[in-house]
Amino acid sequence: MPVSQNIYDRPDFFAAYDRLRRSTEGLGGAAEWPALRAMLPTLAGARVLDLGCGFGWFAAYAADAGAGTVLALDVSEKMLERARAINARPAVVYERADLESLTLPANAFDLAFSSLALHYIEALPRLLTEVAGALAPAARLVVSMEHPIYTAPRKPGWVQTPDGARAWALDGYFAEGPRQTDWLATGVVKHHRTLTSLLAMVAQAGFTIETFEEYRPSAVQLSERPDLAEELERPMFLLIGARKRPEEE
Amino acid sequence: MPVSQNIYDRPDFFAAYDRLRRSTEGLGGAAEWPALRAMLPTLAGARVLDLGCGFGWFAAYAADAGAGTVLALDVSEKMLERARAINARPAVVYERADLESLTLPANAFDLAFSSLALHYIEALPRLLTEVAGALAPAARLVVSMEHPIYTAPRKPGWVQTPDGARAWALDGYFAEGPRQTDWLATGVVKHHRTLTSLLAMVAQAGFTIETFEEYRPSAVQLSERPDLAEELERPMFLLIGARKRPEEE
Repeated sequence: MPVSQNIYDRPDFFAAYDRLRRSTEGLGGAAEWPALRAMLPTLAGARVLDLGCGFGWFAAYAADAGAGTVLALDVSEKMLERARAINARPAVVYERADLESLTLPANAFDLAFSSLALHYIEALPRLLTEVAGALAPAARLVVSMEHPIYTAPRKPGWVQTPDGARAWALDGYFAEGPRQTDWLATGVVKHHRTLTSLLAMVAQAGFTIETFEEYRPSAVQLSERPDLAEELERPMFLLIGARKRPEEE
Repeated sequence: MPVSQNIYDRPDFFAAYDRLRRSTEGLGGAAEWPALRAMLPTLAGARVLDLGCGFGWFAAYAADAGAGTVLALDVSEKMLERARAINARPAVVYERADLESLTLPANAFDLAFSSLALHYIEALPRLLTEVAGALAPAARLVVSMEHPIYTAPRKPGWVQTPDGARAWALDGYFAEGPRQTDWLATGVVKHHRTLTSLLAMVAQAGFTIETFEEYRPSAVQLSERPDLAEELERPMFLLIGARKRPEEE
């Protein structure tokens, strides 16, 4: 069974992560949050599972929106320590767990949520199946992850075209597997999968996909943060909303 | 209402099209055909609609597989003339139609098929809705089209990365709309849409998507045609299998 790399507890990664807008400003600092929020079911009374909770911004949001319980999991002790310090809520339990080998009780949650964690998981089909088993009938899965177009390249980045335009250098799309990148710290490993594979994994785990959305910055976001303009050239984040399928006969 | 560009009847385009493997060799010359064929329902007795039939290779295949009737539509008189000459079958009717403004009888078909035509259609939501209305309950839609990653760039093509590797120069992904390209002839217009938009259009027209597949060459194809190796770097064709949803209450 794969073991999570837990880069988050490395001082270089943690220090850099700690300076990101999404870390300091919470959900409001994450450009894709409004699109993800629009995919959420009613949280009042819901039993929520948060896979890769980081600093706990979503867990606290869910608790403040009336969630009955929130089980917020992360592999990083440092992340959990910060979450408990800045986003403690009576309804939230922060707990260390490795998503590569997680086991969960059956029929225990109404919503499984995950923000930008699943592209780090090698054993993703196993995790999705475990999560499906942990959800109540017709419960929801709402996740964001890096888009396959973003994870595919062997050396992710922009190139200049012969016209002098900026283009995303896409290669390796059908070469699924690990990608070592230098995001925030050197040697971070992501797992690239095609859209075909990702959608099939979600379906095979027992979900019906209801919403498929590639995050694009809004006009308001673009006027406030001109640096987001490059996000119009290629999709960076994939957002999926799904529902647990009824058991087949 | 948009009017189809009908590039196919232009002598320069038709002459170039006529030399393509998929034109001369039929379905066996289309690398994505095995993947598309695997998505087809049983054809025996089926009433089949072929949108953009070209030289009639699929229409003849469907007839030979026992389809009850095949209505094979194309905007190009030259294409239809060739189809009638080389792929005539008693069960097939070849008919001129503009997919931008097509109207169809209700509840008249068991399968709607389209190979590499829909990315030329400006009024795609209208067409999909018309097709859904023409299908019997639970009938199938099986289509291939150019992948949004392939249609997105303002100047489609490969670039060299700083390492000397070959990469697809992706830009313009969220800038939906027409793209003038020089495929086979100058000034061919395609309509770029994001995956998000395409999947939403199919769903909103009244379909449930059952299969989502990005064509990739098989190992056998790669050994027979080494030129297909570049198709591993980025997705070129999107294949969708869908089923007409039951009417909602």
